[in-house]
Amino acid sequence: MTESPFAPRGTAAEIEEGRALAPKFDKDGLITAVVTDAASGDLLMLAHMNAQALQLTIETAQAHFYSRSRNKLWKKGEESGHVLDVTELRVDCDQDAVQIKVRQSGPGVCHTGRHSCFYRAVPLGGDKGKGVTLEFVDAERVFDPAKVYEKK
Amino acid sequence: MTESPFAPRGTAAEIEEGRALAPKFDKDGLITAVVTDAASGDLLMLAHMNAQALQLTIETAQAHFYSRSRNKLWKKGEESGHVLDVTELRVDCDQDAVQIKVRQSGPGVCHTGRHSCFYRAVPLGGDKGKGVTLEFVDAERVFDPAKVYEKK
Repeated sequence: MTESPFAPRGTAAEIEEGRALAPKFDKDGLITAVVTDAASGDLLMLAHMNAQALQLTIETAQAHFYSRSRNKLWKKGEESGHVLDVTELRVDCDQDAVQIKVRQSGPGVCHTGRHSCFYRAVPLGGDKGKGVTLEFVDAERVFDPAKVYEKK
Repeated sequence: MTESPFAPRGTAAEIEEGRALAPKFDKDGLITAVVTDAASGDLLMLAHMNAQALQLTIETAQAHFYSRSRNKLWKKGEESGHVLDVTELRVDCDQDAVQIKVRQSGPGVCHTGRHSCFYRAVPLGGDKGKGVTLEFVDAERVFDPAKVYEKK
């Protein structure tokens, strides 16, 4: 890792109440990014950013992530064309997570072809563990991933 | 770690399109939980669950997490009284994150006394890195943490 381009971590008070962006990257150099829809507020996806992805997202106002499976920087939409324009970026109290509110240029963010990655619900209060049966909700496909993504 | 009480991880198709809850816990035994407000849709906080916390959340429909700093299971509100009633629990495509939609019994979820942990915005498109100055947004205190939490 090169040196962080951001402010150094300070005291808890500085991190929580200060105006310096001092993100806490984990031992793999990543921070969690929560992606929500700027219009509806819906939770769309969760991804990770390294320092470079966060910097590029701030600079360009387009979502950049770091792919843990492919071990590389990843501009959302570079393959699908479904770029995410960031309307607001927020950081949480202890600066170990960010939220980006986005306007989608495509119909959905999920690689399975759905609007959101959170398309299954876990029934509450009843059976648990191995007995759980997921329910599909808001799970209709809004694009065909086989057409949008190259074969991996 | 004891054996996971959930279904074993299967093929990508089983994980993404199946009805079995087969969460992927990371090497520390944790899964990320995104907490959103059931009424407004606002992103409130990010936390982590181990298998037991996820099981208890499913069983009781009240949010349970695992505190990485205190290394213990943690029922949200056990100290503050600000319990979170879960109205819906969702899992994402690759089942390495969950979303809980909650009704708050208290005024806010953030230990700093705010409605949400995401109370500062990062200006976009301009200076970056060390030059970033955070803006406080929706940052008013809705409770006094000194009164609600015991001194740590």
